[in-house]
Amino acid sequence: MIIELVNTGSELMLGRVLNTHQQWLCRQLADLGYVVSRQVAVPDTGADIQLAVRESLSRADLVITTGGLGPTSDDLTRDLIAQMLGRELRENAEVLAHISQFFTVRQRRMPERTRVQALVPEGAVVLSNPNGTAPGLALEVGPDLFRPGKGSWLIMLPGPPRELRPMFKDAVVPLLRQFLPLDAPFVCRTLRATGLGESVVEERVSGPLDPLVARGLQIGYCARPGQVDVRLAAHNTNAEGIVAEAAAIVQKQLGKFLYSDGEEEIEATIVELLTARKLTLAVAESCTGGCIANRLTNVPGASAIFLAGLVTYSNAAKHKFLGVREQTLEANGAVSEAVAREMAEGACNQTGARYALSVTGIAGPGGGSEAKPVGTVFIGLAGPEKTIVERMFNPFDRETFKQVTAQQALDLLRRNLPPAQ
Amino acid sequence: MIIELVNTGSELMLGRVLNTHQQWLCRQLADLGYVVSRQVAVPDTGADIQLAVRESLSRADLVITTGGLGPTSDDLTRDLIAQMLGRELRENAEVLAHISQFFTVRQRRMPERTRVQALVPEGAVVLSNPNGTAPGLALEVGPDLFRPGKGSWLIMLPGPPRELRPMFKDAVVPLLRQFLPLDAPFVCRTLRATGLGESVVEERVSGPLDPLVARGLQIGYCARPGQVDVRLAAHNTNAEGIVAEAAAIVQKQLGKFLYSDGEEEIEATIVELLTARKLTLAVAESCTGGCIANRLTNVPGASAIFLAGLVTYSNAAKHKFLGVREQTLEANGAVSEAVAREMAEGACNQTGARYALSVTGIAGPGGGSEAKPVGTVFIGLAGPEKTIVERMFNPFDRETFKQVTAQQALDLLRRNLPPAQ
Repeated sequence: MIIELVNTGSELMLGRVLNTHQQWLCRQLADLGYVVSRQVAVPDTGADIQLAVRESLSRADLVITTGGLGPTSDDLTRDLIAQMLGRELRENAEVLAHISQFFTVRQRRMPERTRVQALVPEGAVVLSNPNGTAPGLALEVGPDLFRPGKGSWLIMLPGPPRELRPMFKDAVVPLLRQFLPLDAPFVCRTLRATGLGESVVEERVSGPLDPLVARGLQIGYCARPGQVDVRLAAHNTNAEGIVAEAAAIVQKQLGKFLYSDGEEEIEATIVELLTARKLTLAVAESCTGGCIANRLTNVPGASAIFLAGLVTYSNAAKHKFLGVREQTLEANGAVSEAVAREMAEGACNQTGARYALSVTGIAGPGGGSEAKPVGTVFIGLAGPEKTIVERMFNPFDRETFKQVTAQQALDLLRRNLPPAQ
Repeated sequence: MIIELVNTGSELMLGRVLNTHQQWLCRQLADLGYVVSRQVAVPDTGADIQLAVRESLSRADLVITTGGLGPTSDDLTRDLIAQMLGRELRENAEVLAHISQFFTVRQRRMPERTRVQALVPEGAVVLSNPNGTAPGLALEVGPDLFRPGKGSWLIMLPGPPRELRPMFKDAVVPLLRQFLPLDAPFVCRTLRATGLGESVVEERVSGPLDPLVARGLQIGYCARPGQVDVRLAAHNTNAEGIVAEAAAIVQKQLGKFLYSDGEEEIEATIVELLTARKLTLAVAESCTGGCIANRLTNVPGASAIFLAGLVTYSNAAKHKFLGVREQTLEANGAVSEAVAREMAEGACNQTGARYALSVTGIAGPGGGSEAKPVGTVFIGLAGPEKTIVERMFNPFDRETFKQVTAQQALDLLRRNLPPAQ
């Protein structure tokens, strides 16, 4: 099946916004077994949109467009495509009622120009939009119009991600299953590892997975700072069995380095593990500057386990809030095993948390020395039984340094938690 | 001038990585006066790359490709394009020496397969790559090969952003100036506002700018959570004067809501302002969970002004680390004007910082009430003269809530700083 994506928007061409639709839609589709073979972005001027959609319809079984369904003068997609396909636009009473209702609920007057969003091309399926006013539209383009002997499906989605994403899951996926079913079952699963580089992950799993590749397994590796995803997919009648066998092999080969059998971030894993064990956490950060606390508190429900984060950038703050001794700071320097240890233990003592993580290091660009170059970091974990300190070397740019170090700290905690009761 | 961008990479089509090249290159080019009219992403298989590049060369004066110049088996761009253009590949001694040197410096053996990166198509300009092994390549495609009577420039850039970005600035920009000069001067400037919505910004500036639009000014607005960019550009012999006049009008109309005359983040503005005034800052965060501290410490040199961040998620932590009185918490609840005030004042007192910001609110999804719905937040600023508390309402998803609230807090400080001596 050939699938193409057309993103419209002049702000894309000026580089004012990042095209997150491409990654999100390609990912959703790939995980369902539908691989996008081409993505195009064009400005929202008439000629460009029509040309791009026409070219895609001449090649693809499914064309998805994003953007240009709103009420303003540069929202041209609906009109241009109806015109190109020779379909009349008719006001749809149900859509109009939804739009009107949308404004009533928000106690706002419905601007006259939003009425244009109730126009639906003849024969189109309306994809309702509970999060906005512009519905999505899906229509079947008959054979021979753009490619000999074959037709296509054309699906138009609204631009705002909080409208597009639920609409894709709730309306587009069922439509794909009904009108564009896969020729064989597709199964896809991602396992997420941390603490190993991409090449090491590949080295450990690729040999043992070879026999399954011969039976149709597809393997993909994707590295991000401090993390490697292993994607296992198969597309045949034995897909489920093959992927399950492959996952078992990966689990065996990577063991404790795997932290998620889904796609969650490690901070979500930590909140889940601590919540299940009724344990609490405090964090003492120097060079990560609040990055660990920020990531933990991005997880809904973090307040159940997270008591406090102490971002002690200055030595005075390390002493005052964490009880790090002045002589420890003087004798070892702020970036040292001893200070990381006292920071973690101090965070436990001061907050009453069962566990505490600490980080002290040199994020750069300045501040390095020969003995402790930029990228040097000590990560501490204090718990009811003992305190552990690990020395790491993360010679990256400042933000990558913070992210990788935060990942390592959270993983240190994960690897040292007691089993659930 | 017609410019197209071709991004290659199967991982793009699977949605495993975000295509940041599109935004970055489109933005760089637009700010130089070169607007990209189409961007295409294709998998790194031979047929797709050749087809996409051939189509772009049939339309554009300049085609830029990204990716596929590395040493592995899926790095096909160099070969495929040389083949398509009928140019022989020849090993370039200078490039080979650079690659070999690259490994020597890192005390690593040079893998034999990296040698392929020294191959250069006949007649191509080599764009050196100080940050990696694969050079960029630029070549002029003669007239009539792909479009009647006209030729094109084709520039191939490596995929890794830390190689591509410096190469674009150091090698591609001079090449554009030399071989593809603009027909008239182009000037572009961005001013950044916070604290006003996009429509209010537009309402305030668009009328007064109208006379300049008639003289060739182009205006663009771009909204991000808590921030609006106003882009002013002109492309004619009076460009410099027109953009300067426009900037003066925007400055007059938006006044204190403008925080940057460049494109820096507000946390960088804060570090700069406090450093220049030799002032220090502490932060007490509840619902933003370390987001403010994290943003501040992303700025190199933040340690000169930032003493400590106290992420006091629990009431006990608010009491212990900030001295918020238990009766204040009981009488008003943690999300209140009174608690925000005591948090900010406590942060000043406990750290000795001249200023302190505090935030307490309800990020959601849970925890709201009728009087204080999800999105309610109190932001405090304590300073040597007085304490200010503002109540805001940010009913967004959790991460947007944190970003917008952090932006508002940093802006509260910016607006209340004394003038520099």
